[in-house]
Amino acid sequence: MPDLDDASAAAGTVAAPGGVGLVAPRDFVHARPFTFQSGQSLPGFTIRYETYGQLNPARDNAILICHALSGDHHCAGRHSPDDRKPGWWDNLIGPGRAVDTNRFCVISSNCLGGCVGSTGPSSLDPATGRPYGISFPFVTIRDMVRAQKLLLDHLGVSALHAVIGGSMGGMQVLQWGIEYPGFVRRLLAMATTSREGAQAIAFNEVGRQAIMQDPAWNQGEYPKDGGPRTGLAIARMMAHITYVSDASMDRKFGRRKKAEANGDAYTFDIQFEVESYLRHQGQSFINRFDANSYLYITRALDQFDLAQAYGSLEAAFAPVQAETLVVGFTSDWLFPPEQNRTIALALLRCGKRATYAELETDLGHDSFLLESEDLYAIVRGFLEREATVEVDFNI
Amino acid sequence: MPDLDDASAAAGTVAAPGGVGLVAPRDFVHARPFTFQSGQSLPGFTIRYETYGQLNPARDNAILICHALSGDHHCAGRHSPDDRKPGWWDNLIGPGRAVDTNRFCVISSNCLGGCVGSTGPSSLDPATGRPYGISFPFVTIRDMVRAQKLLLDHLGVSALHAVIGGSMGGMQVLQWGIEYPGFVRRLLAMATTSREGAQAIAFNEVGRQAIMQDPAWNQGEYPKDGGPRTGLAIARMMAHITYVSDASMDRKFGRRKKAEANGDAYTFDIQFEVESYLRHQGQSFINRFDANSYLYITRALDQFDLAQAYGSLEAAFAPVQAETLVVGFTSDWLFPPEQNRTIALALLRCGKRATYAELETDLGHDSFLLESEDLYAIVRGFLEREATVEVDFNI
Repeated sequence: MPDLDDASAAAGTVAAPGGVGLVAPRDFVHARPFTFQSGQSLPGFTIRYETYGQLNPARDNAILICHALSGDHHCAGRHSPDDRKPGWWDNLIGPGRAVDTNRFCVISSNCLGGCVGSTGPSSLDPATGRPYGISFPFVTIRDMVRAQKLLLDHLGVSALHAVIGGSMGGMQVLQWGIEYPGFVRRLLAMATTSREGAQAIAFNEVGRQAIMQDPAWNQGEYPKDGGPRTGLAIARMMAHITYVSDASMDRKFGRRKKAEANGDAYTFDIQFEVESYLRHQGQSFINRFDANSYLYITRALDQFDLAQAYGSLEAAFAPVQAETLVVGFTSDWLFPPEQNRTIALALLRCGKRATYAELETDLGHDSFLLESEDLYAIVRGFLEREATVEVDFNI
Repeated sequence: MPDLDDASAAAGTVAAPGGVGLVAPRDFVHARPFTFQSGQSLPGFTIRYETYGQLNPARDNAILICHALSGDHHCAGRHSPDDRKPGWWDNLIGPGRAVDTNRFCVISSNCLGGCVGSTGPSSLDPATGRPYGISFPFVTIRDMVRAQKLLLDHLGVSALHAVIGGSMGGMQVLQWGIEYPGFVRRLLAMATTSREGAQAIAFNEVGRQAIMQDPAWNQGEYPKDGGPRTGLAIARMMAHITYVSDASMDRKFGRRKKAEANGDAYTFDIQFEVESYLRHQGQSFINRFDANSYLYITRALDQFDLAQAYGSLEAAFAPVQAETLVVGFTSDWLFPPEQNRTIALALLRCGKRATYAELETDLGHDSFLLESEDLYAIVRGFLEREATVEVDFNI
């Protein structure tokens, strides 16, 4: 373990020695039929994943990381020395970091239905040789979790030390605790909800309409490098606003104008820096994300409703054995603190070990992704304390 | 004056006898050149307007109503006996209502740059015989106000008892107090801002991109019944979410599903009621609004920045003579209460007569449009008390 009293900690930054270094994704091929919650099925699927750290002899020190809507399996390290950016949760995961890869074996996979190596609507349908498009089965959060379990079985994991995720990843965390209660010791869900409210559904619907009304969507049939790029960029620009906050956008951009837009330049082209930033968000997204996956995954988000699926939130959580930590962020207006608190309260009402931490941030929904000493300390404390839960290995 | 102690008031509803009845819009044609703030000019313009109530002999009992982005001049009464809905502020305006047409002559006009009768980008350019499109001059809030002043001069109004508006209408109210200080006695601005923050600009930019990226936009050249209907509908759906609130959407729709979408219907078509509602908002908007006007008016909103235009908010308000009431709504997250309060505070720092009222609602930005006894009482009190301001008639 690195010394937390070292120079970087003293300077007010987090002790972050090195990170996990170079990493490479791998593919797990499940070559047997898989039936989705919808009743539809696939003859098999591939899940792309990465691991950081080593499994212990008991194979029970694994931590599963679940990504959000636009994330993927690459959450720590770099794929090549000249990678511009590390994985999306690199600040949290690594040797000596809050999720300590000296102690834990971190496993992270691209979700079923995704578009970064795992089987999804952009994958080729062996029956036709063309991408599935919208003939791909509808995917639910539970389907994603069941596919992750098959991956963990393949890797010989005997129990999960923890499942961690924010936003859609947090939904998967909750589903893990319900679906495989004896397999997971700790649930850590951040910036999430047990069901979206009308506003979150509404934003997802506008995004889907932007994609589906783009003529290039063509009922989901488009070439790999084509498709509804305009609609997807619009969807992403709008969604991005919901991931941040009024305050953080004001701090970052305010009303500053682009250098070329002096004074009251009269134009419909970029005038304010925030416009330029948003367009960049849209453009970079269309080069890495599949529009049909966006439809499938937002639908999975909208349909996730534990109370409806199990009769009540308490009924949903009845089987949970893991200790649960839910973290909400004050400035998150997509999945607001109340929705996070509700999860912990329902678990407590069921007599489960659960707690809720609310962090004061002004960074919005994406707070769970950002550098925060407070968050790191809570995550580390939750992962490294002794478990009070007896794990049933006889799943 | 109706008796406020009558049965309907006792029953908890507002005394609202009758409304203004049948009304007809009229056109004011300004047949002289008009130079916009941008330096561009038009040989003349038309402003469509309506009036309710009578001007008194001194011609100083007029109240000007300024509409928001998607509003128009038709704010009270009906155009025909079978009109399904009255004007957009009919609950506020009428004989005996908060803006009492027995006492005041209410004047309401469609803004310059609009698309409901006033000259805007969808009007025919006499030089080409085709719609101006994006060759139309850029419009600012100040341009809208200057055009309104020409209308009032034409109508022989000697002074305004008040100018009232919400959202963009509130921006016009503030500009009125600055531009024509001796002409207006009371400013009543609701759910507004002296300048948008980055988030509001960001939402407007996504809307503009949805329109301009629609191939049917065609650089602003499209036939009257064509154009970027898809993009405009997307823009409206998204914007509508920002006009309401998470709480009000949850109360109105929650996660209720459409009758045809039973259980976990797996579809990208409408599943939740809120989706159906939003699509309806988009579809009805494209039948009444011009996409280029949407671009021009959202740009006018984004560019409105009193502090930047005059050096500081205090410098902007230095000439104001009117008494000002600013009303903010707790659930308004588009132009939040703080931005409204800021206006009143700056006026007070300048030694002006100003006050701020914050109404507790959960209806979001559109709270200013909705039925509220509290709002009516404040508006009535502000309009009917004696003015403490001496009006300078020698403008």
